[in-house]
Amino acid sequence: MVFSVAVAGASGYAGGELLRLLAGHPEFEVRTVTAHSNAGQRLINVQPSLRSLAHLTLVDTTPENLSGHDVVFVALPHGKSGELTTHLPAETLVVDCGADHRLENSDDWAAFYGGDYFGAWTYGVPELPTQHGKQRKRLVGARRIAAPGCNASTVALALAPGIHAGVIDAQDLVAVLAVGPSGAGKSLKLPNLAAEILGSANPYAVGGTHRHIPEIVQSLRWAGSTTDATISFTPVIVPMSRGILATATARLVPGTSAAAVREAWESAYADEPFVHLLPEGHFPRTADVLGANTALIGLAVDEAAGRVVTITAIDNLVKGTAGAAIQSANIALGLTETLGLTMNGVAP
Amino acid sequence: MVFSVAVAGASGYAGGELLRLLAGHPEFEVRTVTAHSNAGQRLINVQPSLRSLAHLTLVDTTPENLSGHDVVFVALPHGKSGELTTHLPAETLVVDCGADHRLENSDDWAAFYGGDYFGAWTYGVPELPTQHGKQRKRLVGARRIAAPGCNASTVALALAPGIHAGVIDAQDLVAVLAVGPSGAGKSLKLPNLAAEILGSANPYAVGGTHRHIPEIVQSLRWAGSTTDATISFTPVIVPMSRGILATATARLVPGTSAAAVREAWESAYADEPFVHLLPEGHFPRTADVLGANTALIGLAVDEAAGRVVTITAIDNLVKGTAGAAIQSANIALGLTETLGLTMNGVAP
Amino acid sequence: MVFSVAVAGASGYAGGELLRLLAGHPEFEVRTVTAHSNAGQRLINVQPSLRSLAHLTLVDTTPENLSGHDVVFVALPHGKSGELTTHLPAETLVVDCGADHRLENSDDWAAFYGGDYFGAWTYGVPELPTQHGKQRKRLVGARRIAAPGCNASTVALALAPGIHAGVIDAQDLVAVLAVGPSGAGKSLKLPNLAAEILGSANPYAVGGTHRHIPEIVQSLRWAGSTTDATISFTPVIVPMSRGILATATARLVPGTSAAAVREAWESAYADEPFVHLLPEGHFPRTADVLGANTALIGLAVDEAAGRVVTITAIDNLVKGTAGAAIQSANIALGLTETLGLTMNGVAP
Amino acid sequence: MVFSVAVAGASGYAGGELLRLLAGHPEFEVRTVTAHSNAGQRLINVQPSLRSLAHLTLVDTTPENLSGHDVVFVALPHGKSGELTTHLPAETLVVDCGADHRLENSDDWAAFYGGDYFGAWTYGVPELPTQHGKQRKRLVGARRIAAPGCNASTVALALAPGIHAGVIDAQDLVAVLAVGPSGAGKSLKLPNLAAEILGSANPYAVGGTHRHIPEIVQSLRWAGSTTDATISFTPVIVPMSRGILATATARLVPGTSAAAVREAWESAYADEPFVHLLPEGHFPRTADVLGANTALIGLAVDEAAGRVVTITAIDNLVKGTAGAAIQSANIALGLTETLGLTMNGVAP
Repeated sequence: MVFSVAVAGASGYAGGELLRLLAGHPEFEVRTVTAHSNAGQRLINVQPSLRSLAHLTLVDTTPENLSGHDVVFVALPHGKSGELTTHLPAETLVVDCGADHRLENSDDWAAFYGGDYFGAWTYGVPELPTQHGKQRKRLVGARRIAAPGCNASTVALALAPGIHAGVIDAQDLVAVLAVGPSGAGKSLKLPNLAAEILGSANPYAVGGTHRHIPEIVQSLRWAGSTTDATISFTPVIVPMSRGILATATARLVPGTSAAAVREAWESAYADEPFVHLLPEGHFPRTADVLGANTALIGLAVDEAAGRVVTITAIDNLVKGTAGAAIQSANIALGLTETLGLTMNGVAP
Repeated sequence: MVFSVAVAGASGYAGGELLRLLAGHPEFEVRTVTAHSNAGQRLINVQPSLRSLAHLTLVDTTPENLSGHDVVFVALPHGKSGELTTHLPAETLVVDCGADHRLENSDDWAAFYGGDYFGAWTYGVPELPTQHGKQRKRLVGARRIAAPGCNASTVALALAPGIHAGVIDAQDLVAVLAVGPSGAGKSLKLPNLAAEILGSANPYAVGGTHRHIPEIVQSLRWAGSTTDATISFTPVIVPMSRGILATATARLVPGTSAAAVREAWESAYADEPFVHLLPEGHFPRTADVLGANTALIGLAVDEAAGRVVTITAIDNLVKGTAGAAIQSANIALGLTETLGLTMNGVAP
Repeated sequence: MVFSVAVAGASGYAGGELLRLLAGHPEFEVRTVTAHSNAGQRLINVQPSLRSLAHLTLVDTTPENLSGHDVVFVALPHGKSGELTTHLPAETLVVDCGADHRLENSDDWAAFYGGDYFGAWTYGVPELPTQHGKQRKRLVGARRIAAPGCNASTVALALAPGIHAGVIDAQDLVAVLAVGPSGAGKSLKLPNLAAEILGSANPYAVGGTHRHIPEIVQSLRWAGSTTDATISFTPVIVPMSRGILATATARLVPGTSAAAVREAWESAYADEPFVHLLPEGHFPRTADVLGANTALIGLAVDEAAGRVVTITAIDNLVKGTAGAAIQSANIALGLTETLGLTMNGVAP
Repeated sequence: MVFSVAVAGASGYAGGELLRLLAGHPEFEVRTVTAHSNAGQRLINVQPSLRSLAHLTLVDTTPENLSGHDVVFVALPHGKSGELTTHLPAETLVVDCGADHRLENSDDWAAFYGGDYFGAWTYGVPELPTQHGKQRKRLVGARRIAAPGCNASTVALALAPGIHAGVIDAQDLVAVLAVGPSGAGKSLKLPNLAAEILGSANPYAVGGTHRHIPEIVQSLRWAGSTTDATISFTPVIVPMSRGILATATARLVPGTSAAAVREAWESAYADEPFVHLLPEGHFPRTADVLGANTALIGLAVDEAAGRVVTITAIDNLVKGTAGAAIQSANIALGLTETLGLTMNGVAP
């Protein structure tokens, strides 16, 4: 059976990546692509890399245009999908790549985003260890899925095993991320210009203000933090179009052996197709996961510093957004989880 | 039927890209990967992006290790495949990604490469218009194929239609290419260091010395140049890991209309799955073909300068090397030509 | 004596570079910096790299604010300086970094820019060989100077010696430029976003439409082209913040020896502090001139192609704009020509 | 008075940067440049960006060639300067840019470097607050100076004020650095190739193994840590040729106000010409200090995480190495401290 698919927000980077992956998915057929200011244009003029979808034309992002499909992927700016998706039938699988349906706590929404709150949907990080088993279980049969924030899911995947196993201290977490500017979308702002980013490393949202912080804390709560985690979180834009390399460290719970630490991560991801713990002494690079739905995690115990250090590489547009959305949709619909997704990065 | 495959030179960039594509090819199964100094290592340690091939171990590049497969892809340094492949059975499909079997003329080999000459194999650019139809025809049933040089095939695809149709002057060709450093392989030389290339544009092989020049001239001869083409060819390394953007211009044959020029390219590539002429006023970027087996060509007639200007974007490791090799192998074996290859680039 | 200086358009990239250089100039003192939307802000908030000028505050770009200085550098968008500078006193040295006063021919202005035409000022490329000696001569004592277009001056410096000496054919010129995106200024347009430019080579203004073409033709006319030059000109944006690497080739006049070619360039630039011909077999990289007021030229004769190939590297913001402006101002005021400018690039 | 200068290791990146700065220094004259495998070559062939030093030729790195100068700057690989500099007269000012003379503790040397230990020299970070005043005091009149490690001095400058003032916990420090590959020098190793680094973020020396850790701990001891600091330190190579952006965080000592935190850094660097604390809410980018001897520090207190977050940007080759060396030499010789150094970065 082939599922009919619509993609809302098809002219952005996340929308384009959804389409790139959907074009190679054997059970999905993209029938409708919507946009705002680009409505009326041929998709290929806006997304010139999507040659196999040259037959599609962008239409307005309206409930009418999105209805009548089996699956609707929504890749709109934050705050734009909440109301829109209330108009879609309950039996339609809707996967939202925006932030509107990620947070369970309306106070977090108010504090970090603001505007109307439309409630949380099933969170689309299947591999996340929770106190009730993997998050994957909750996705089976779901019809409303919130794809994760790219930075948030990277850090959650990096640290959740240690929280889950009780080997790291949830009150002493530090994450610093090297991120590519595609995560900011096509927003026409000075800090996103090439001349500002080439040859430079540029921090932003320093000091606890990044919107993905409550999402990380929520994931770590599910993973078993007894009190809510506190995390120092700093993203740094670096001159690569895609990718996140998260260095996430945590204080080691005193008395824990290095073997116990490694065992925590190994057991969490042993059977995962897309999340891989690298062997002792190996650490990932973002190039290794470019274009792939893979998260690679390297792990070290720094005895002198009393900290566990994790290095996690993902492609922010794939495992961080569009790939997570499709993987979650596969699970929700009962398809093979890996359909349309690749494990292998485009390197160099 | 699944064909068993060996890849010689699997630890290099071209070898890695062959494996990335082969891993997603439904009719090929990689059984053997060979290397020189890396023999004995697990493939995943040398090519950490190839997660789905983590079960493979590199063995020595010997005729014994390569024998017994249906298809052997060879990605060795120039001069290394000539002798080696003489030991492989005639019925084995051998696709050489090196230069050893590209040139028909032994004098060209001697002048630009040197060392023993092992003769030309069927050239692996299926879309090339020749005086006897598309090059594709010659590839059907072939068992010895020379994959093209990445720069050479880019320029040949860019200019051959105009030569073939007689609308440009083969004696007045100029090509300047922006190229990524992956084309130089893993060679440990100072000019290949990141600190030398980041933030800089670096020319090399200026003034008619690049080894791909005779290969271009050969392709244009096949396309119909009445006397051998003369071309000024200058590659410039720019800070992107992959990609070639060739600006190839030619003097317009006096009296030719802009419509006749466009018709020459349109008719050459109208039905091609992987080579696309963009509409008037559109020009490609290398990001649009990253990871894809696609060549995108933009075309303009500059009446004031009396020249035709073509802009061609390819991924040097895919359409320029590994993708061309697999596409040619598909044709040779009677498979669907597009198997295992994608039209859509990984952008941004 | 110290000259008082105002810089109009101080919040842009060209304005910032003027200020960086002026801050190190022993005879110039920046007293006034003007802006449009940023007026009222501290300069350091808009140009955080200019620590030594942290005491300055941006004021509105008005004739009143610009008056009362010995020297006014204008770095406004094209079309914005023509009217404004009519209000400045004749005895004030005004150096315009925009295009408004570069072109002698009002038809060229109308065809490539449009809007009101305010006439040509003395062109600020001192090293340009003309039929009446170096352009430098015209700059002595000048009070209205048009700094060059960065692409235009690069190509003019590259080819003028060959035109001047009669060894290349002005009717068969081809230039392809790898350029950094800072040349586009802080314009908030999609093609200028980092995600569009990182990892990609992007052509623009293909097919004879670039605004610098008439400026090149004008320079080559001064250099001695008997009929106006025709040039195929293609710029390609590459992922480096600054720099231009121009590959400019020309048909060799039949019968010219390679020695005569080299002599043409050697004699043109033998005594120049900032324009250097590299030895046979050497070619420049843009990193070698980053931050410097230097143009480096490599030269080859490609006998097989019958062409002269020049490779020229400059920093578009220095020798291409702000450095040329200051060098020209030094000459106009009778100062040592090299004051405040460096020959040495910031590499790697 | 002009001091005669020799630079040992002039063909590397640090040596080249020393020469770039020395060429603009009014009181230093470079008379001798030495190299190992490049001895005998003209300097300009090895360092093509140093046009103003084109008259120099590289000679062998021997005590004989280095003797007879007022100042000798040494930029050799670690372990190569210890023995060599024992042959230089005591009255010669010797500034070593290698690690050989940085560490006071021979056990640290043995553990992180190994080989013969030649003792510590005066450490060349003038701005470092110590329990006995600024480090600058110790540099006055010194004749043996150890220029700092680039990563080490960045982190020390970032955290020392908080240690010195007692507002952060020296036992809970985390630093993650985005660094450019020029810090690795011209070493011909696979991880340094452009194709490995372009488009990717690559960690190295993860888990407490980086050689700069004992140097940081030493600086923080001088700054007043009552027990030796423990720090989790992770460098990440990103695709920019130069620059370090250090995100260094520390647990806030309970009960400390945000104002007290800011006061600690403000008082430490209030009068420094080259180290600047940015205002509340401002954070630096590496482009802002490219080519400059400036360290810019942004500071935030993350109350929720209970941590102080510092962001520090330097140019690894200038303030991190060659600029620090020259600044220290200026102090040692009684010259104006800022001679030959610039505060303004080359941005964009």
